[in-house]
Amino acid sequence: MKILIIGGVAAGTKAAAKLKRENRDSDITILTKGKEISYAGCGLPYYVGKLIEQKEQLIVNTPKQFSALTGVEVLTETEVTSIDREKKEVYATELSTGKQNNYHYDKLILASGASSVRPKIEGSDLQGVFYMRTPEDAVSLRSYLETETVKRVAVVGGGFIGLEIAENLLNFGVKVSVIDMLPHILPGYDTEISDYIMDHLSENGIPVFTETKLEAILGSTRVEKVQTNHRTMKADAVILALGVRPNTAYLDGSGIELMPNKTVKVNRQLQTNDPDIYALGDCACVTNRITQEPFWSPMGSSANIEGRLAALQISGESVEYPGVLGTSVVKLPDLNAGRTGMTEADAEKAGYDAVSVIAVLDDKAHYFPGSGNFIIKMIADRKTNQLLGIQVLGKGAVDKVVDIAVTAISLGASLEQLQSMDFSYAPPFSTAIHPIAHAANILRNKIDGTLETVSPKEFVEHQADDYQMIDASASPAIPDADYVDLTKVNGVLPQYPLDSKLLLVCAKGKRAYLLQNRLKYYGYQNTRVLEGGLTFNKQYLIK
Amino acid sequence: MKILIIGGVAAGTKAAAKLKRENRDSDITILTKGKEISYAGCGLPYYVGKLIEQKEQLIVNTPKQFSALTGVEVLTETEVTSIDREKKEVYATELSTGKQNNYHYDKLILASGASSVRPKIEGSDLQGVFYMRTPEDAVSLRSYLETETVKRVAVVGGGFIGLEIAENLLNFGVKVSVIDMLPHILPGYDTEISDYIMDHLSENGIPVFTETKLEAILGSTRVEKVQTNHRTMKADAVILALGVRPNTAYLDGSGIELMPNKTVKVNRQLQTNDPDIYALGDCACVTNRITQEPFWSPMGSSANIEGRLAALQISGESVEYPGVLGTSVVKLPDLNAGRTGMTEADAEKAGYDAVSVIAVLDDKAHYFPGSGNFIIKMIADRKTNQLLGIQVLGKGAVDKVVDIAVTAISLGASLEQLQSMDFSYAPPFSTAIHPIAHAANILRNKIDGTLETVSPKEFVEHQADDYQMIDASASPAIPDADYVDLTKVNGVLPQYPLDSKLLLVCAKGKRAYLLQNRLKYYGYQNTRVLEGGLTFNKQYLIK
Repeated sequence: MKILIIGGVAAGTKAAAKLKRENRDSDITILTKGKEISYAGCGLPYYVGKLIEQKEQLIVNTPKQFSALTGVEVLTETEVTSIDREKKEVYATELSTGKQNNYHYDKLILASGASSVRPKIEGSDLQGVFYMRTPEDAVSLRSYLETETVKRVAVVGGGFIGLEIAENLLNFGVKVSVIDMLPHILPGYDTEISDYIMDHLSENGIPVFTETKLEAILGSTRVEKVQTNHRTMKADAVILALGVRPNTAYLDGSGIELMPNKTVKVNRQLQTNDPDIYALGDCACVTNRITQEPFWSPMGSSANIEGRLAALQISGESVEYPGVLGTSVVKLPDLNAGRTGMTEADAEKAGYDAVSVIAVLDDKAHYFPGSGNFIIKMIADRKTNQLLGIQVLGKGAVDKVVDIAVTAISLGASLEQLQSMDFSYAPPFSTAIHPIAHAANILRNKIDGTLETVSPKEFVEHQADDYQMIDASASPAIPDADYVDLTKVNGVLPQYPLDSKLLLVCAKGKRAYLLQNRLKYYGYQNTRVLEGGLTFNKQYLIK
Repeated sequence: MKILIIGGVAAGTKAAAKLKRENRDSDITILTKGKEISYAGCGLPYYVGKLIEQKEQLIVNTPKQFSALTGVEVLTETEVTSIDREKKEVYATELSTGKQNNYHYDKLILASGASSVRPKIEGSDLQGVFYMRTPEDAVSLRSYLETETVKRVAVVGGGFIGLEIAENLLNFGVKVSVIDMLPHILPGYDTEISDYIMDHLSENGIPVFTETKLEAILGSTRVEKVQTNHRTMKADAVILALGVRPNTAYLDGSGIELMPNKTVKVNRQLQTNDPDIYALGDCACVTNRITQEPFWSPMGSSANIEGRLAALQISGESVEYPGVLGTSVVKLPDLNAGRTGMTEADAEKAGYDAVSVIAVLDDKAHYFPGSGNFIIKMIADRKTNQLLGIQVLGKGAVDKVVDIAVTAISLGASLEQLQSMDFSYAPPFSTAIHPIAHAANILRNKIDGTLETVSPKEFVEHQADDYQMIDASASPAIPDADYVDLTKVNGVLPQYPLDSKLLLVCAKGKRAYLLQNRLKYYGYQNTRVLEGGLTFNKQYLIK
């Protein structure tokens, strides 16, 4: 059997190697536009920041090594221009010679990936304008930083690639700022979480400007300034991290069904509308596990899973890919952020009776050196208590909390099930009540009315403006708020009538919850706890 | 309602606080033998090792603070001597005065915990003999280390408390050795995993002697030597970490049903055979989630879950505790170890058609600074592919892998389900193919015959003695083994007939698997891959 694979980074090489292991008689050829295959795209920002010293470390295998290890033929610098499904042929150009070739296939795998969005704006061809998608991109940027005088860099785009490169530039000692045309950075997070991250970045050396559209890059031969709808800023280099677009132009006229965003639509077997043609990785639109709707999640991790499954399917196994959750995790300066499943906004849009809570919890035993907070936003369906999504911030192992949620959501877990799981605990690793179980406890309390809250989003939207703020901290911490010491509350508080609207705020939320519990017992009906306490809301409360 | 709670560390205080929040009208009293409540028992070794500076950091709340926060009455230094279920009374002695009191209850919670096993051997009352269960134990040991000349310490017992204290003593600069009467340390791990840990500890400054029984502690007024069945060793102090026994002697004659190990038997609502009496935490025997059999897992983490659930049940909710998995995690010098679910040995005993694999995998992107290995032993049922258990070793986030497995096992996941989950990935956190999914891939390959192996256990048991060892590493690494370069294998190897028995060994197992795949294609029928490669088996292969 002749199998052609278009593209040779994650999905393509994984499928090729597995196909050859399943049947070494198969004739398998990778056609790829680039010089390299099988490179670590996710490592590029860390090469720029010199956490990874050598370019060679980013290359998992050279084409030659890969062929020797697997028996797969690799044709690099070979750009596919079109396919003919009738003849089962792929047409491609040898980039070094310009020669046109055609290649027959019995099965065809589209793993052509995605490319950086390249906006057509004035100055985008100046020296000092970079993208962050291929090893060449990273090598040119690092070389520019090492050889030119670069004091200020503007990163355009506040997605995770933009923020990763910003962190690494900061490590390089340059001044870096991030601009994004949208109102919030980091798509995939609810707005108040994005805002927290933005605030954190600005406090940690990376000012972020949202609702700021790049209009032009200015300079004579090299970048000198960037012009936005708000201001013109000095910059010695610009990184355009505006996201990616699928590489599927060669499919025009092929009859392969594309989504409106030009990704290739596939079924649960990763087949396109032509059963002999599969699509995988960044160029493919798979399924969202929760909504069962088409979902594009261009990530190296799912690309590998898809490569393996497609190889098995082509080799005669019957596979079914349940799809993705839009999981991601990103390291930022002194803060990690991870997410999976639905945001609260997504869940509402999808018609769920969504309920969420923001919980601030210890990430390991509070007395253990290096302990800190997790900020967990947990989203569930109020009717079924099914876990729908999670967003986690913290200096520590946010990926752990996210991966537990991935497992739980994939298996349809309810909050109750999470609450009583026998998670691992020892002081260097976690807390006696596991943070994710703790968050589930709090969300259950909110669902059943044991805990009544104002969320940070509601707070910012002025929904608590008619509430009097009460500082419920262990010792007074909020200027201009009345202080109430929980341990001294043993009846109605003379200064507050029972119908007072009281917003209870403490460091993280726990002591305010205990105070609410006690006040309710003594007859107060209108108390609310500010979710996330001072820790999450300091951006709004103390400036 | 009058609720008495016997015991005030984890389960007791959790139940008390939650009960009071559910109904502040309840009259709730904790009776506890010790001076402190609510202390961080799991932190004691780290206090000894001075990672935790102050004793006060171990105390979550003093009795006074706890009462002020919760409204619960706490009677410390009050030892319960018996209970009368007819009269619904508890009898207790005030330890400071010797006075006997009786206390009425409507509901009674037994959360009396467990105590160190104290063997009756010669010399156990000498100065310099310590246990590790209460804050007093930790304070006396640290004080002894600081004031006396202590050069050598013998830790008796190779469970996780023993090993944690050994690591912390090492940090203190003393020579420490561990002796254990059993053939393997760390119950809960399969023997080859325990052996790896033992080997690692010995290489990292903590010699471990198994099948070594403490016979006497020798010295005039203070410890000078320990005498075992094998040898007499110098020691300036001895830590007896021989495990714990439930504190349930006061239940003799009460008619409360105990297990053979003297723990209290409870149902899924945490009730004893007397529906007005509950038992929680270290003194209770709950259920194993997988086997549904009674299971004792005296851990602070499950104690907290049980405290919360019992409080809800008593408050009128209908709860059901599905039980534990025997999860644990421990930090050792330069190695973490975690486990959950069944060991392979347990699974076989329980009648499963158990299948397992040992996989050595990157714990994060191999090119990222600080990356290392996970050694994962994954156990499943061959018939259903249900995940049954996991054991994980590594310098990094073993707790993450364990917690994913906890979630998966609790929800009845199969290996297939794990293989295609959308776990979080970025180079600082994980690998593109998540280690737990990777391990599941390998185990599936073993189950379906794509991978044929010799496990380390089989290797040690001489089951591969008639195989010729082939070094399949990227470059020769095993003395006295033939070297075969995978990339040059393109047909039958002249030096090996097709019926040769070949044991393929590489660094971690992957390259040996690729070589096996290729040799099978060329007609070899008797190849085996050594699971875990040199990394896991160096203890057996290179000495």
